[in-house]
Amino acid sequence: MRAEIVSVGDELLKGQRVNTNAAFMSNALAGIGVSVGRVVACSDVEHEIVSVFAESLGRADIVLVTGGLGPTKDDRTKKAAQLLLGRGLALNQDAFDNVAGRISGRGEGMLASLRDQAMVLEGSTVIANTRGTAAGMIIGCGEQFHHHYLVLMPGVPAEMKAMMERTVVPYFAELSDTVICHTPVKTLGLGETKLAEMIVDIEESLPSGTTLAYLPHAAGVNLMISTFGCDRTAVDRDNHSVVDAIVERAGAYIYATSEVTLEETIGAMLLAEGLSVAVAESCTGGLVASRLTDVPGSSAYFLQGFVVYSNQAKQRTLGVPEESIASYGAVSEQVAQAMATGCLEKSGADIAVSTTGIAGPSGGSPEKPVGMLCLAIAEKKSGELFSRTLFMHGDREQNKLRFSEGALRELWEWLRNRSSFSRSAAHLS
Amino acid sequence: MRAEIVSVGDELLKGQRVNTNAAFMSNALAGIGVSVGRVVACSDVEHEIVSVFAESLGRADIVLVTGGLGPTKDDRTKKAAQLLLGRGLALNQDAFDNVAGRISGRGEGMLASLRDQAMVLEGSTVIANTRGTAAGMIIGCGEQFHHHYLVLMPGVPAEMKAMMERTVVPYFAELSDTVICHTPVKTLGLGETKLAEMIVDIEESLPSGTTLAYLPHAAGVNLMISTFGCDRTAVDRDNHSVVDAIVERAGAYIYATSEVTLEETIGAMLLAEGLSVAVAESCTGGLVASRLTDVPGSSAYFLQGFVVYSNQAKQRTLGVPEESIASYGAVSEQVAQAMATGCLEKSGADIAVSTTGIAGPSGGSPEKPVGMLCLAIAEKKSGELFSRTLFMHGDREQNKLRFSEGALRELWEWLRNRSSFSRSAAHLS
Repeated sequence: MRAEIVSVGDELLKGQRVNTNAAFMSNALAGIGVSVGRVVACSDVEHEIVSVFAESLGRADIVLVTGGLGPTKDDRTKKAAQLLLGRGLALNQDAFDNVAGRISGRGEGMLASLRDQAMVLEGSTVIANTRGTAAGMIIGCGEQFHHHYLVLMPGVPAEMKAMMERTVVPYFAELSDTVICHTPVKTLGLGETKLAEMIVDIEESLPSGTTLAYLPHAAGVNLMISTFGCDRTAVDRDNHSVVDAIVERAGAYIYATSEVTLEETIGAMLLAEGLSVAVAESCTGGLVASRLTDVPGSSAYFLQGFVVYSNQAKQRTLGVPEESIASYGAVSEQVAQAMATGCLEKSGADIAVSTTGIAGPSGGSPEKPVGMLCLAIAEKKSGELFSRTLFMHGDREQNKLRFSEGALRELWEWLRNRSSFSRSAAHLS
Repeated sequence: MRAEIVSVGDELLKGQRVNTNAAFMSNALAGIGVSVGRVVACSDVEHEIVSVFAESLGRADIVLVTGGLGPTKDDRTKKAAQLLLGRGLALNQDAFDNVAGRISGRGEGMLASLRDQAMVLEGSTVIANTRGTAAGMIIGCGEQFHHHYLVLMPGVPAEMKAMMERTVVPYFAELSDTVICHTPVKTLGLGETKLAEMIVDIEESLPSGTTLAYLPHAAGVNLMISTFGCDRTAVDRDNHSVVDAIVERAGAYIYATSEVTLEETIGAMLLAEGLSVAVAESCTGGLVASRLTDVPGSSAYFLQGFVVYSNQAKQRTLGVPEESIASYGAVSEQVAQAMATGCLEKSGADIAVSTTGIAGPSGGSPEKPVGMLCLAIAEKKSGELFSRTLFMHGDREQNKLRFSEGALRELWEWLRNRSSFSRSAAHLS
């Protein structure tokens, strides 16, 4: 089955509100194998709503509508559905009881003014509103619209979500015979073009019913492998065969095949190895520490961070030698290394990560351009000290984000190599 | 003039990405008096894009499109525009130079594979991409589509935004005959309801053609005063009269009446007073330092930050007494004060700001619930030490953001009071 989503409301057209409802509904429908063909946001004007309904019902089996069910003058959705389908309204007793319960004690006048909230289109299935007053409805549209379904819900996200979860999703899951499997493949360190080249033959020979989408982010690209079909076993098999092929080809760049963040992945690796971490940041200004501590429970492995922005702070707080800064410059692998070893010593952590670079817009030179990042990783136990220089191309905000992503990526790679090394070492012993 | 927005990409239909681009574009168009009639999100499929383009161009003077301009197989927007309008492609030299510059040093093969990014529809006005490789274009559609405009931009938000601001908005502002004036009024420390009560009479007697919108954010509300008309002098006069009235009424809560951030405002105040700052963070995990260093040139006043996540780090790095943590708990004004004074001493800064709190989801108790923030501000010269406890209500991510906003807000207030004090003192002498 194929759906469309219609979001009614001028606030969506003026940019005063981001349409998060549509993403929620799309996601919920994807979960039951109903694909969404279009999402349309339109104004509160009655004839405009009628046109949009007619167009969408002509194309899609199910049209999910949010917005315009409230009690004020600019709520015209129900009227538009009546006009389009030529149906009357009837009071729904359960919906009326719900309204009465919600405003109990606020007077008869209030109840009368909200009575319309319990009026539903004749012949519709009422969707109970467990979070508000406006009744929702699932309307079978008859022959004129190929027996397609029009579903009306309020625009308030909490009310819509409860209706979707309690009523709409189960209702259409029953009618849908599509089985679905989505798997994300999260990669780092490769651009969209490079990754596409690397898996070109896999992409060209996808099993029928399987699609592959590219979702670029600051330091790489996430892939989404989606498979649709009728048979659960076949759908899962086809989906996993594609994921496995990509992992085999590009595994060195893949940090997850599930919905986790890079910060969470790093946290889980640190926990598994029983390692603590500290960071010393110059150009990233605290962003690496902030991202690592975005993960609930990160206090189990994140000890502390040093934002050493000035040269004096680098020397005084982390013991970076003045001569290193004088000889090599504050943005150099030598200084990054001194920051990492100083951080290790001052924090008592098992691993330290450092960043020093030029975020811009000023401060660049031909040898050390804006976007240049030097980073280092030091480990207490092994005494290992690793450093690298990377180059990004963005404005200050992008560079800071990409620097932090670069540092996290290197930490992830370092942890992965370390753990595969210790695993193989353990295997030998 | 009337516009429609078309967002191309399966990720929008699968609920994998929220359509924030559409809200940004609607807002930008509102700024030049262009209203948006519909927003349509459609799939990557070529014939579907062609249908949507044809329908939107039939209704709207301007159709703004994002997405589907990338280098991979699922990027079909340009092809769809070609099919619809019967136009060929031509290489644009400036766009090609941009691509070459961005991937310099990464080889000829890479450049060849990205050459398509610089191919544009014949007869179009090229929109330079200052953030990425895909060229945008403004296409005058000829008689078949009533000389309406089709505008193609990438779906990457930073690329689209730069194109809108640098090229698209000025282009259509020229064609629009509406004169407009927008003034933001940025407030802190008041909720939407309280602020609305405070300015109710101003809002009820707005000059005709002037609107007032509330845009709530983490620590307060921004207002946008917009005036539309035909005459520049009258439009500006009406707009400024409303802004002046609001500033007179709510000045104590207003930090800016222009498009500057709180971080920039604080930076300008520090520079003006010749003061340096350092921060000591627990619950905010580096976010306060990161936000302060988002401002270009912040190295002139930001010395360093300490992310002291563990109790041991608080003691060892900042000299917070073990007894204070034992007696009052790590989340207490006493510990916040000790962090601020320790930070002052270790950094050598003129002012230190500290945060300690419970971001959640775990770690809360009846006395110290999730969302509780203790902060302190210390000044070297005066020896002044100020602390406060605030309570937020959100999930971990929201709390971290609100904590950082709370700390910045207190710093701003503190600096303002300080500077008005020193100004009056200077006046007396």
